[in-house]
Amino acid sequence: MLVLDKKRIEEVVDLNGMMDQIEEAYRIFGSGDFYMPPRPTVEDANKTMMYMPCYTKEIIGTKILSIFPDNAKLGLPSIDGIVYLNDYTTGKPLAVLDGQAVTAWRTGAVGGVAVRHLSRKDCHTVGIVGAGVQGFHQALYACAAREIHTVYVYNHSDRDLTDYLARLKKAIDNPAVEVVQCKTVEELVKNSEIICTTTPATSPVLPNDKELLRGKCIIAIGSYTPQMREIPDAIWDLVDKVYIELPYACEESGDLSQPLAEGRLKEEQTVLMNEFLASGADAGADEGKTVYYKSVGMGLFDVCIAQKILEMAKERLA
Amino acid sequence: MLVLDKKRIEEVVDLNGMMDQIEEAYRIFGSGDFYMPPRPTVEDANKTMMYMPCYTKEIIGTKILSIFPDNAKLGLPSIDGIVYLNDYTTGKPLAVLDGQAVTAWRTGAVGGVAVRHLSRKDCHTVGIVGAGVQGFHQALYACAAREIHTVYVYNHSDRDLTDYLARLKKAIDNPAVEVVQCKTVEELVKNSEIICTTTPATSPVLPNDKELLRGKCIIAIGSYTPQMREIPDAIWDLVDKVYIELPYACEESGDLSQPLAEGRLKEEQTVLMNEFLASGADAGADEGKTVYYKSVGMGLFDVCIAQKILEMAKERLA
Repeated sequence: MLVLDKKRIEEVVDLNGMMDQIEEAYRIFGSGDFYMPPRPTVEDANKTMMYMPCYTKEIIGTKILSIFPDNAKLGLPSIDGIVYLNDYTTGKPLAVLDGQAVTAWRTGAVGGVAVRHLSRKDCHTVGIVGAGVQGFHQALYACAAREIHTVYVYNHSDRDLTDYLARLKKAIDNPAVEVVQCKTVEELVKNSEIICTTTPATSPVLPNDKELLRGKCIIAIGSYTPQMREIPDAIWDLVDKVYIELPYACEESGDLSQPLAEGRLKEEQTVLMNEFLASGADAGADEGKTVYYKSVGMGLFDVCIAQKILEMAKERLA
Repeated sequence: MLVLDKKRIEEVVDLNGMMDQIEEAYRIFGSGDFYMPPRPTVEDANKTMMYMPCYTKEIIGTKILSIFPDNAKLGLPSIDGIVYLNDYTTGKPLAVLDGQAVTAWRTGAVGGVAVRHLSRKDCHTVGIVGAGVQGFHQALYACAAREIHTVYVYNHSDRDLTDYLARLKKAIDNPAVEVVQCKTVEELVKNSEIICTTTPATSPVLPNDKELLRGKCIIAIGSYTPQMREIPDAIWDLVDKVYIELPYACEESGDLSQPLAEGRLKEEQTVLMNEFLASGADAGADEGKTVYYKSVGMGLFDVCIAQKILEMAKERLA
């Protein structure tokens, strides 16, 4: 059984290969050839273990999260975990991967596929709202999907981002790309053609100003509970559809459930990304058109991405 | 995160330390200071993943089994798996251990504790019915718990046991202990003071003869479904109680559920092993007294044993 920690995963991942694999996962999602049952969860003393199994026809994976809200008091992340892979035919344990790393590279790749297919091909700027792990990876994938010359970063707190920006610049590994901090989110929005929001906010982090948001490709990653919210109501004056991964997103994310409850959004305005990709259509062709993609993720992505990382690691060993 | 495979586990386990830890697990079981919820199970295409979480006040563990009955056609074991350990306070992933190895060392240790406390101190012979992985480990622990001079082995098939017996002799690592194959189970029963049954049988593997079974310390490990059966009805002419780990065993094991349904056994004749151990009583003192222990195992044992193996592995690294 192979064990792939954060460092090893970072060494082997290929960004375009990861995005290709997310497109493959969308194809599997569309085909229905997978089994993703409800997620068993057990809890004692505010310590939750969540088991997220998913079977494709190639592999069986279980993402296992330990969700410990009390970790915040200790200055530790409240969610940690692993992804456990089993051979599809025999059930043999194949690998255990660092769960935080799989989540980060997977979520980034999902955003990257959205950049690939929803943004204009001539976009050269991306703005990252939320200077965390997710924002870091969104930036890497955006730079792999488009010829980006500037990555703008905004963080709501006054934390010193010097080290973060330097690490990001180094990870992008392309002297043609500048990494620039913005003092306000308005400045970031003005400067960025593509905007990725990656925060745990419970009220919108982008300005509620349709003129500022017009023509942007907005990729919202953060909100994954009904209480969380990143995108302001102004978005609904600009778009007539929102791209999502699966219908359940409408329940899970406050960015969808709240406007649905308030009548600003109707369910028929949601477009399943796998259907959009299968149609071969192009969403971001027109200059001035606003595009909105809301991601909540799903176990199928984790399993497909973990499978791909395992393949990449084995190729390196070979 | 540490990864402990079969070989590494074999290198670090200390048999008496393992048995001490099973006694500690019985103490925890008696105190009620643990959380062992029902085991979430998912299945697709006859491929089952079973998640067995258990929280003690020191650690959180999940045994994850992949149960693939179709493996029999491929000549592979139908059950494989891992044990995943998390820090109790933070949920941090601590270790992944080979599930087959944890099961074997754990089950052996449970049998070993039964030998420690239920057999007479002057027993020098043990008989193993079923020349498999479980039988192998039962023999090791019996030799650690008592001054055994002969291990008898019986297997129902005519498989050549030369290699098995040689490996067992080597693993016992004591020149004073002989390992001897029996041609019949009757021969094994006659020669052995302690008898461990470790088979997947669905009808009794010991002779249904109360004179042959009289005075033996019988440790039944195999039957873990209501259809499975190892111990013949004659046992109920010899014992007025059966030692078990938890009440659920009466539903899970055919060795208990069948005699209960037939009225040969009454529930009040079952003695919980943790209560027996806590009482400090001695079951095997009288010469000629038959003692019967039936094990089905529980997640709490797996987690406590995996925790101990991890500690032993860390001590070696230190």
